Amino acid sequence: MIKQQNILIIGAGPCGSLLALRLAQRGYKVSVYEQRPDLRKENLDSGRSINLAFSNRGNKAMKMVGIEDKVKALCIPMNGRMLHDIDGNTIFSPYSGREHEYINSISRGKLNALLLDEAEKHENVNIFFNRKCKLVDFEKTMALFQDFESKSEIIKEANVIIATDGAGSVMRQSYYMGKKFLFNFSQQYLNHGYKELSILPTETGDYKAYKNALHIWGRDAFMLIALPNLDGSFTVTLFLSYDEGTYNFNNLTKKERVIEFFTTYFKDALELMPNLVDDFFKNPTSSLGTVKCSPWHYKGNTLLMGDAAHAIVPFYGQGMNAAFEDVVEFDKVLDTFDGDWETVFKTYEASRKKDTDAIADLAIDNFYEMKGHVNQTIFREKRTLEMELEKHFPEAYSSKYSLVTFNEHIGYREAMLRGRAQDRAILHMLSDGTISISSDMKKDELKLILEKVKNETEVILKEDNLSMLK
Amino acid sequence: MIKQQNILIIGAGPCGSLLALRLAQRGYKVSVYEQRPDLRKENLDSGRSINLAFSNRGNKAMKMVGIEDKVKALCIPMNGRMLHDIDGNTIFSPYSGREHEYINSISRGKLNALLLDEAEKHENVNIFFNRKCKLVDFEKTMALFQDFESKSEIIKEANVIIATDGAGSVMRQSYYMGKKFLFNFSQQYLNHGYKELSILPTETGDYKAYKNALHIWGRDAFMLIALPNLDGSFTVTLFLSYDEGTYNFNNLTKKERVIEFFTTYFKDALELMPNLVDDFFKNPTSSLGTVKCSPWHYKGNTLLMGDAAHAIVPFYGQGMNAAFEDVVEFDKVLDTFDGDWETVFKTYEASRKKDTDAIADLAIDNFYEMKGHVNQTIFREKRTLEMELEKHFPEAYSSKYSLVTFNEHIGYREAMLRGRAQDRAILHMLSDGTISISSDMKKDELKLILEKVKNETEVILKEDNLSMLK
Repeated sequence: MIKQQNILIIGAGPCGSLLALRLAQRGYKVSVYEQRPDLRKENLDSGRSINLAFSNRGNKAMKMVGIEDKVKALCIPMNGRMLHDIDGNTIFSPYSGREHEYINSISRGKLNALLLDEAEKHENVNIFFNRKCKLVDFEKTMALFQDFESKSEIIKEANVIIATDGAGSVMRQSYYMGKKFLFNFSQQYLNHGYKELSILPTETGDYKAYKNALHIWGRDAFMLIALPNLDGSFTVTLFLSYDEGTYNFNNLTKKERVIEFFTTYFKDALELMPNLVDDFFKNPTSSLGTVKCSPWHYKGNTLLMGDAAHAIVPFYGQGMNAAFEDVVEFDKVLDTFDGDWETVFKTYEASRKKDTDAIADLAIDNFYEMKGHVNQTIFREKRTLEMELEKHFPEAYSSKYSLVTFNEHIGYREAMLRGRAQDRAILHMLSDGTISISSDMKKDELKLILEKVKNETEVILKEDNLSMLK
Repeated sequence: MIKQQNILIIGAGPCGSLLALRLAQRGYKVSVYEQRPDLRKENLDSGRSINLAFSNRGNKAMKMVGIEDKVKALCIPMNGRMLHDIDGNTIFSPYSGREHEYINSISRGKLNALLLDEAEKHENVNIFFNRKCKLVDFEKTMALFQDFESKSEIIKEANVIIATDGAGSVMRQSYYMGKKFLFNFSQQYLNHGYKELSILPTETGDYKAYKNALHIWGRDAFMLIALPNLDGSFTVTLFLSYDEGTYNFNNLTKKERVIEFFTTYFKDALELMPNLVDDFFKNPTSSLGTVKCSPWHYKGNTLLMGDAAHAIVPFYGQGMNAAFEDVVEFDKVLDTFDGDWETVFKTYEASRKKDTDAIADLAIDNFYEMKGHVNQTIFREKRTLEMELEKHFPEAYSSKYSLVTFNEHIGYREAMLRGRAQDRAILHMLSDGTISISSDMKKDELKLILEKVKNETEVILKEDNLSMLK
């Protein structure tokens, strides 16, 4: 049954198109306004992030809307990290000790197109492209758009406006500039920017590197990563400081210097990228920022979702997963309070914000882990131990990475608190000799270590709780 | 000798006028533009914070400019907190176990006037009032002002612009809106606002409550405080949620309800405030926010200082002290790099920001301590123990409060890290029975406890260090 409520969604990226699909399934009349052209008709993504990590939390949302199988066809499993050292040696470090736990590389564009197609199957959904939002009057529940086709400005009213317009959200800016209520807002940039490069397929269309891994060249001060695409290529991303260190984005302005940099630090990668220099100077350098804010909603009129509410850095591979999980959590709240938008928005934010704050912080942590910690002995020992624990005690132990990535039934905040306490417990005990690892540990030994880790984790959690007393 | 460099200071509050004075002493040509009228000629402060806590870090700045004695004449010592319980009973809780350590209540206006007078004694200082900054072009080192007297707009160029225009800084907003560089910015509001009230002197001009204390009526969800003024009055501040709880600013709209609220929770204070209702409805309700940002400077052109760079909530009594300490730290950097503004600004921010971030966080912590913790047994025991340690081992122990407030030779960040570790050490050991307090502890017993606290603190600091590994 079609409801008489009009919902306006600003932004038809993955989050906005999933939301449109779900609200359509619930019977709402949904209009979606997107500033860019229809990505199903034009190739838009050159030089921007074109593949993303997709995992359990995102998949939960695909199940909800009934397209899990269609999405699966777009996925390339990545079972672990392939760590490349400076001499070109590689070590494979699995994401989990449990075989069925892995993450996926997926094309942002293909997934977005699928979600748009699915949404448009519903007659109560209308999607408009080339309409850029200029501002939102949240008191009147109205938005002003620039229509790039007719070259005119249009005003849209709705019962409810939900902005899924990404990290640079215009509605969020309207909240900030409006000064009609106390708006908590933070934008924090890393000193590193990123640039996309590529490893093309072989002439026969094969992968030039191991397909089922996320490749990492971690060099402490900077790093390179690569994720596989369905066509045999890899999308490669360089994370590098704008202005610090011997090599940085500001001083890599000449072809020779770029090659010198890659020859010194990423020799094995360079051999797979004859197209490096072209990519390097063709593709833009982009910034890496974290945005947090609250409130997300204004009364029962407007709501921010996805990156518009909580943009995060990409290092935990959770940005899209978190945005999709937003829609799942929002949907749950609708089950209870459908019809009372203010209560829906308030309840949703009250339960959800602690989790999106947590994944933002975890993603920053992982930046340091990926570019540096993965190369340190004590962190490798921790990781080796955790893989053994997960393998031998699959029901009893999950690392922080597993809690965040594969345990979609708990929230990010719970995963963070427990995962961090576990990390501290293991690092303390490895460094003071309470536990140690050897090359062939017996299950009995591991069981003893597991108990020590569990006990020490509980002690730390209890102490943290006391320190956080407010 | 007068230097040929023109420095433009935006804002003639305590920080801006101190800075003007110091730069004048150094021989710069200084112009100060202030949006409000000259507070020495008009009474401007009704309903705004009119007295402030002044302590060692602020005094360090007064020594630097040679006006310590003149400021001392404006000070009323406060030796501790006078805690008022709901039945009107009071307990005095000293700020330190060392007698010479106390804080002061000082009139913001009188101190500001003194600093303006001292600055204007220098012929190389010109202060202009009624000129509101509209925007700063940081690339051209130019600022645009609205002149309220001539009703015209004026443009001022300078070699350097330093903005000390407070929490709502126009120059900081120009940084944010300009999008010319990656600007990290955060504004966070408490759910509590504040309103100023007053306890007037007796008919004979005496104080109606104990003069040499900061009075606190902490009620967990809200609190009232009072600081003495030289004229026998107290400035009283109510901190209360805007919208949570049975009584909040949004629902205290009627005279009867305000009286009911005070009768229930602040009976002994109400008896001293026959003028309560008038004050309550005459004075505005203001918000409590924390602002952090970086960079503070743009090249060698412009710099944010004081609240403009780091506005904090008032609960540690450090807002003005931190702003004054900014000028001391800036002055030290000038000793080394005078003449090279970009290096001065960069060096200053690199050493200073960690400390202003720390005091911002400490001030939030103290909000919870003042309104609630001070009433909890374990926190009182900790405090009692710390006073004994400071009294018997004045050289060997300083509480977090003492480290922050009275140890001006260490930075806020060092004070925070050590102070928090000490707090956790004592709370853990009190709660698990490793240490306990009794009414008459011998020096030997205390010595043993001191050692335990020191050892446990070191353990915690070491563990923290490991967790913070990046």
